[in-house]
Amino acid sequence: MTRVLLASRNAKKLAELRRILVDTGVEIIGLDDVEPFPDAPETGATFEENALAKARDAAAATGLPSVADDSGIAVDALNGMPGVLSARWSGKHGDDQANLDLVLAQLTDVPDDRRGAAFVCTAALVVPSGEEIVVRGEWRGTLVRFGRGENGFGYDPIFVPEGDTRTSAELAPAEKDAKSHRGRALALLLPHLRALG
Amino acid sequence: MTRVLLASRNAKKLAELRRILVDTGVEIIGLDDVEPFPDAPETGATFEENALAKARDAAAATGLPSVADDSGIAVDALNGMPGVLSARWSGKHGDDQANLDLVLAQLTDVPDDRRGAAFVCTAALVVPSGEEIVVRGEWRGTLVRFGRGENGFGYDPIFVPEGDTRTSAELAPAEKDAKSHRGRALALLLPHLRALG
Repeated sequence: MTRVLLASRNAKKLAELRRILVDTGVEIIGLDDVEPFPDAPETGATFEENALAKARDAAAATGLPSVADDSGIAVDALNGMPGVLSARWSGKHGDDQANLDLVLAQLTDVPDDRRGAAFVCTAALVVPSGEEIVVRGEWRGTLVRFGRGENGFGYDPIFVPEGDTRTSAELAPAEKDAKSHRGRALALLLPHLRALG
Repeated sequence: MTRVLLASRNAKKLAELRRILVDTGVEIIGLDDVEPFPDAPETGATFEENALAKARDAAAATGLPSVADDSGIAVDALNGMPGVLSARWSGKHGDDQANLDLVLAQLTDVPDDRRGAAFVCTAALVVPSGEEIVVRGEWRGTLVRFGRGENGFGYDPIFVPEGDTRTSAELAPAEKDAKSHRGRALALLLPHLRALG
């Protein structure tokens, strides 16, 4: 078995990647399975920079092939922001409701035909021998004016994916995984992970 | 004398434009000097759209050559936002302190070498016979981490113009007028206004 570190403590992310990589000869471990090392702050100007920095730190600290991701929402009428600031758009880190409420307030006067947005996920794989892969998954949709749905997190309650009428917080988790920015990024990374097995 | 309508109720803006146009045969009047007409909401995606829409509305309603402006701040690390949403960035319209505080909070982790910004002003002149002119003035600078200075308004307390160490809220009004985005836009419009005289 080849061990690959996913630079995350999120049990759902770990389970998802393990599910995808079952029977490939790749074993996924998380940050809780390795010696602690200092986290680099996410101060990059792009999702790519942040994912790559996290994966590089993890690979350098552990000597293991390491995967990291960074994601957020890019709103057309906000020139692609909140972007890398998605988790702290309201100024406080991780307050999903405040972040979502602020985006809705900023878009109050933005008409329906200019409310496009994309969820974006970049994933980086860094192999200590030197190989670096960065991939990007996008999920296009529009932003509604009032949140709805109980699944998901972040901006899911206000995002209606193209071709659907439900918000991504109204999709079942497996359905979301199959279509989402994160699912697409992992699919792009998959051949590179399999090649390590 | 040719009368030109400045689509504004701001006494400072009117006085400034009158000062610039003294002895040119152009008389500037403001919205308080004409019959009231409905204001179009500022919902354009660009400063240009907003300025042009305001000037068109004013020219159509009054039959006078009409000038309108729209302005805001474009922050590099926010992909050019707050932009047209500068006056309502925090979700509430016209709360300068809340807007400025939000930008500072969003930029907390943005390092000094990525804190560039530009004040932008577009001004439009619409002549009822059909001529439309739109000009843009920009004023580059950087954003500091704590506001200072008592002059100006909006984002002035956190904006240090290129070539200076003071914020634009620490400049004397006449000094600011001579260098600012608004001053530059009016300078670009001036030959077109003089041609009406």
